[in-house]
Amino acid sequence: MSEATTQTVTACLLIIGDEILSGRTRDANLAYLAKWLNEEGIVLREARVIPDIEAVIVATVREVKAKFDYVFTTGGIGPTHDDITASCVAKAFDTPLAFSDEAAAELMARLAGPLNEGRRRMAMIPKGARLIKNRISGAPGFVIGNVHVMAGIPQVMQAMLETLRGALKGGRKVETAAIHVYAGESFMAPTLTQVQGRYPDVAIGSYPFAHDDKYGASLVLRSADPARLAAALGDLRSALAEAGFLPLDGEAPPHRGAN
Amino acid sequence: MSEATTQTVTACLLIIGDEILSGRTRDANLAYLAKWLNEEGIVLREARVIPDIEAVIVATVREVKAKFDYVFTTGGIGPTHDDITASCVAKAFDTPLAFSDEAAAELMARLAGPLNEGRRRMAMIPKGARLIKNRISGAPGFVIGNVHVMAGIPQVMQAMLETLRGALKGGRKVETAAIHVYAGESFMAPTLTQVQGRYPDVAIGSYPFAHDDKYGASLVLRSADPARLAAALGDLRSALAEAGFLPLDGEAPPHRGAN
Repeated sequence: MSEATTQTVTACLLIIGDEILSGRTRDANLAYLAKWLNEEGIVLREARVIPDIEAVIVATVREVKAKFDYVFTTGGIGPTHDDITASCVAKAFDTPLAFSDEAAAELMARLAGPLNEGRRRMAMIPKGARLIKNRISGAPGFVIGNVHVMAGIPQVMQAMLETLRGALKGGRKVETAAIHVYAGESFMAPTLTQVQGRYPDVAIGSYPFAHDDKYGASLVLRSADPARLAAALGDLRSALAEAGFLPLDGEAPPHRGAN
Repeated sequence: MSEATTQTVTACLLIIGDEILSGRTRDANLAYLAKWLNEEGIVLREARVIPDIEAVIVATVREVKAKFDYVFTTGGIGPTHDDITASCVAKAFDTPLAFSDEAAAELMARLAGPLNEGRRRMAMIPKGARLIKNRISGAPGFVIGNVHVMAGIPQVMQAMLETLRGALKGGRKVETAAIHVYAGESFMAPTLTQVQGRYPDVAIGSYPFAHDDKYGASLVLRSADPARLAAALGDLRSALAEAGFLPLDGEAPPHRGAN
C-alpha cells in the first residue's frame, strides 16, 4: 500500500451480469479480490451481483461509491450491445463517454483485424477516467473517482489487479488464525462466547465441517492487531482445552458439515 | 408453482457471512438457487454478500424485502455467537425471537446429547415464523413474510429448497437457448445489435470463450415467451450465417476468453 492508516478502509464489489444471476456462470472473482484487497490493507465489506439493466447499474454505482472507500466492478466491458458497464458508470458520475486514443492503441496492439465498431465501443470510457491496463488482454479497464471497472474474465481481472498493486490507500491488514476441533459447535458455543467477550476487537467465526463421519468446526480469528490476535488465539486454545476440547494440529479437514 | 402469473416475479439472495467476504469460503448457493427459482417461475434479480454485522444485516433485510417479491438468506443460523441471522431478521420485522418447540423437536430428533444452550439458540425463531424443515439436517430454517432463512451449507440449503418446491407463487419460467460461434465478439456485434433491436423482449447476451487457441462467443437468448425465443433464435442463426459466421452444433467449448 502507498500510505498506511489505522482506520478500516472498505471496498464493495459489483459483479455485473445476467450470466452470473442466471446461474449459467459461477463467479470466480470475489474470493480472489477479497484476498488481494486484504494484502493491500482493504476490507471487502460487501459484494452485489446485479443484472445487465442500465437503471439498476447506475443507481447501484451511485449508492455504493458514496458508501464505501473503493468500488470494484467486474463484467460488461466487451464490444457487444449487452456490455453497458462503461456507459452506466459514466452516467453514475454525470460524465459523458469519450473515445480514448490510448485505449484504442492498447486494444489494437494485441488484436488482428481492423478497429471495427465493436472495438471502438470498447475504447469509449468516461471522460477523465484513467486506464487500467493488463498484460493478458489488450482491453483495458478504467478508474473514475473511487470506482475501478474491470473485466469479468478471471485471468484478465487478475492481471488488472496486478497493475493496481500498491496504488490504493490501505489501512492495516487483517491477520487470520484458525483452530480446528472435532466437536459439535453447540458444545463449544459457551467457550467461544466467553472468549469473544474478552476480545471484542478480534472477530471469532465458527464454521462447521464433517470429515470421516465426525463433526467439527474451524474457529477462525481475524484482527488488524497481531498482538491481540495472538492473545485471543492463546486464550481460545486454553479455554477449549479446559472445557475438554482438543484442537487438531494443521489444516482443517476438507468437508463442511452440520452443527 | 402453485399459481401462475404473466408478471415477472423477482427474488434477492442475501449471502450472510464473513467467511465468504474474506475469500475463505466460495459461495456455492447462488447458482443453485438461481436455477431452482427459474424452475419455479421466479427471477433471481440481485444477490448481496454481507458481513456478520447486525446493523448491516437488519438494514439490508429491510431494504430488500420491500424491493423484491421474495428474499432468501443463506448462512448464520448455527448455534454459536456469530450466528446472528435469526435475531437480525426478527429485528428487521420488528418482531421478538421466540423459542420454538417444533424447531427444538426437529433438532433433537437427529442429534445426540442434550438440548444445550447452543441448540436452544438454534430453536429461537422470529415470532410467527414457519419452519423450513429439511431431510439432511435437523436444523430447520424459517419463513417470515417474504423472507426465507436458510442454511449456508450447500447440501442443507438444497434440502430446504426441496421442501419449498411448489410453495411459492411464480410467474412464467424464463426459457434459454444458446448458439456458440468461433468468431471474435466485435465482428459479430453489429449482427447481435440488429437482432436484439428486433426482439426487445428477448435478452441476448454474448459471452466470450477461448478454446484450442481460437476465440469465440456463446450467444445466450432468454425469454419467458417460448414462441418469441424460437423466432429470435431462428433470426439470429440466419443473420449470423448471412454475415458469414457459422454456429457450432451442440455444447460450448469450455474455456472463456477474450474479445
